[in-house]
Amino acid sequence: MMKANDPTLKSWITIDKNSDFPIQNLPFGIFKTASLKPRVGVAIGDQVLDLVAVSKLGYFNNLRFDTQVFAKEHLNDFIALGQPLWRSVREKISDLLDASKEELRDNPEAQKKVLIPMSEVQMLLPVKIGDYTDFYSSLDHATNMGKMFRDPANALLPNWKHIPVGYHGRASSIAVSGTNFHRPKGQTKAADAELPVFGPCKLLDFELETAFIIGKPTQPGETVSIPKADDHIFGMVLFNDWSARDIQSWEYVPLGPFLGKSFASTMSPWVVTLDALKPFRVEGYKQEPKVLPYLEYLGKKNVDINLEVYLQPKDGEPFKLCTSNYKYMYWTMEQQLVHHTSNGCNINIGDVMASGTISGPEEGSFGSMMELSWKGTKPIRLPDGSERKFIQDGDTLIIKGFAKKNSTRIGFGECISTVLPAL
Amino acid sequence: MMKANDPTLKSWITIDKNSDFPIQNLPFGIFKTASLKPRVGVAIGDQVLDLVAVSKLGYFNNLRFDTQVFAKEHLNDFIALGQPLWRSVREKISDLLDASKEELRDNPEAQKKVLIPMSEVQMLLPVKIGDYTDFYSSLDHATNMGKMFRDPANALLPNWKHIPVGYHGRASSIAVSGTNFHRPKGQTKAADAELPVFGPCKLLDFELETAFIIGKPTQPGETVSIPKADDHIFGMVLFNDWSARDIQSWEYVPLGPFLGKSFASTMSPWVVTLDALKPFRVEGYKQEPKVLPYLEYLGKKNVDINLEVYLQPKDGEPFKLCTSNYKYMYWTMEQQLVHHTSNGCNINIGDVMASGTISGPEEGSFGSMMELSWKGTKPIRLPDGSERKFIQDGDTLIIKGFAKKNSTRIGFGECISTVLPAL
Repeated sequence: MMKANDPTLKSWITIDKNSDFPIQNLPFGIFKTASLKPRVGVAIGDQVLDLVAVSKLGYFNNLRFDTQVFAKEHLNDFIALGQPLWRSVREKISDLLDASKEELRDNPEAQKKVLIPMSEVQMLLPVKIGDYTDFYSSLDHATNMGKMFRDPANALLPNWKHIPVGYHGRASSIAVSGTNFHRPKGQTKAADAELPVFGPCKLLDFELETAFIIGKPTQPGETVSIPKADDHIFGMVLFNDWSARDIQSWEYVPLGPFLGKSFASTMSPWVVTLDALKPFRVEGYKQEPKVLPYLEYLGKKNVDINLEVYLQPKDGEPFKLCTSNYKYMYWTMEQQLVHHTSNGCNINIGDVMASGTISGPEEGSFGSMMELSWKGTKPIRLPDGSERKFIQDGDTLIIKGFAKKNSTRIGFGECISTVLPAL
Repeated sequence: MMKANDPTLKSWITIDKNSDFPIQNLPFGIFKTASLKPRVGVAIGDQVLDLVAVSKLGYFNNLRFDTQVFAKEHLNDFIALGQPLWRSVREKISDLLDASKEELRDNPEAQKKVLIPMSEVQMLLPVKIGDYTDFYSSLDHATNMGKMFRDPANALLPNWKHIPVGYHGRASSIAVSGTNFHRPKGQTKAADAELPVFGPCKLLDFELETAFIIGKPTQPGETVSIPKADDHIFGMVLFNDWSARDIQSWEYVPLGPFLGKSFASTMSPWVVTLDALKPFRVEGYKQEPKVLPYLEYLGKKNVDINLEVYLQPKDGEPFKLCTSNYKYMYWTMEQQLVHHTSNGCNINIGDVMASGTISGPEEGSFGSMMELSWKGTKPIRLPDGSERKFIQDGDTLIIKGFAKKNSTRIGFGECISTVLPAL
């Protein structure tokens, strides 16, 4: 076990037992304040540890690396220093915050310099994203979509259980949690209409997803094997793959989703490291038919991450739309990554690979309005008496996620954004 | 007319009348030599004008901009200075190379400092690519694919004449001309097989394309109108969208091309500016049914660019596979760009938007082996007696392009790469 994951560790900082950010988590992000330029921080309880300030006080001196990587607008340069260094930095931070270690605990002057209340920081996109890929790896989601739009008796397409199906998405429009966007316009065609029309999307949907961030690049032509896959993953975030269902359905044959997705995606700001998630690994799906040898894996490669989605109407209270779990993924991150590089496609630090909508087997665990309202046939009643088939202007969507095992609970914070009216 | 486009201009440099790079062209690229670090250059005849050296001699002093943009590994920072500046720089370079102007003509010392034989330079990828989009905008190509794989009587899908259909591609694996790659491996399933297999691609294909490069960004939510579209385009390149047809056909339903394309794409190194192409603008297709108002345009928005593809077998001579033309595009660049931003998707400098395979109406003008060999049913016989249905290991593909009007001919150079055996 990594020392920083020890469930018995306690911090000298007071941390609520339901906090997403206990000492066992230590996720990395980019923040700024009214007076501080963008930089790398680590979340601890309801505070942010400023790694530029920590560096200046010399706490990382023994690790001998260029601490200028912390004075950047993205995590890429820090990530580029390599997995052994990420681990050493996380272990050192764990020591600094450990209640049993005096180094920072007994230095209130230093504490003032390195800790900032979360309420005073603005979080930015954690990485400079090169390429963004979105997979389609939840069995229940793919089955639901097939039942609704194809053949209920043969809901899954023939390739689905052989390939972690995915597609390239638009990187430029991925924004950090808290970034609102205007309802997209686009071409749509009603089934009974002769011609398409152009106007605001009528079937705006969220997609409950997570994403993992590439931590180690490959060269063109290079492939990654299953046992090496985790070495290429820095960590995970929550992800909302906003979707305009009516634009998507008119455009997507034969080349896939394009403008139905590219107007906005929302990412949570704190990257929870794969290391921190290690204690929450669980068995994956039994994959039948057997996958091809390059995709075979052993051991616990799924992750037990509780996921929740809330809808908050304008001037209303958040209402829980669904409760799902990352463990419902049929294909693992490692299989997705191995498949992605199997043709020699090179990957870069900061590339984002999203899960696809994560739906569970029960109705309350479906990860999109399309599934929750079953194509709009079962409207969802909110506490204020209004109904939703899809997302309305002024609605705020909030995704939360946390992993819990015995007394340890580590969370992802929130992935939140509000839909503004079309321009 | 822009002064630099004047067909009567002559340079004091001796330039072959069939050169791609007369004084009317002046394309921008990134080069390095054994002794010079990567930097911006302009092609003129069989030489490269080193813009770092030109700056050092003070020739750009009157333009008052930060000439450090020329000492970069990509054109993005130069492009970011804006269209008026690109134009002024091109006009100044035109003056410097003009046979009627003495400034550089009569200064042999300066000439030695700024001109480098093309044989001594290595060209690099011209831009740092953010996002890459590939369209599907040639009527004959889309019709051919529909005839082969769907219904010959209804070859075009219902959306095709309403939407410039496109999809997001993989930016990381776009490489400059001269970069070879290994035949990709992947999952494929024969039509009569029960299960897929993993191995080297058997149906490797090229796609004759061009691409345009974004020169002016937009903010999220912002749209671009047809009259403003050209302001966002810096220039054009040749593009080979390598395709593994067998991988693609097994993976692409329902989310589009993924590993069948992402292993490699090849881009020519010299970006021919939209300004230089202005004299070669021609009428576009008559679009019936009428497009929606946001896509309507007036004037000459197509471009007459002759395109040729050669296949050179290992140790053999180049053989012309096809002769096509950019004017066969049904959708214009401007329509593609306007559609791309119509949902508010933001674009960035250096984004690449490729045309899709450009096929003409005759068999000899088809832009892929899939069409030229009609799904492999009509093998192409090469001068050495061998046959090709698709591309073999050791084959080199060469795309050339040039626009010609009266006595003026401006070209794109070559887009070339060789297929190495699978690893």
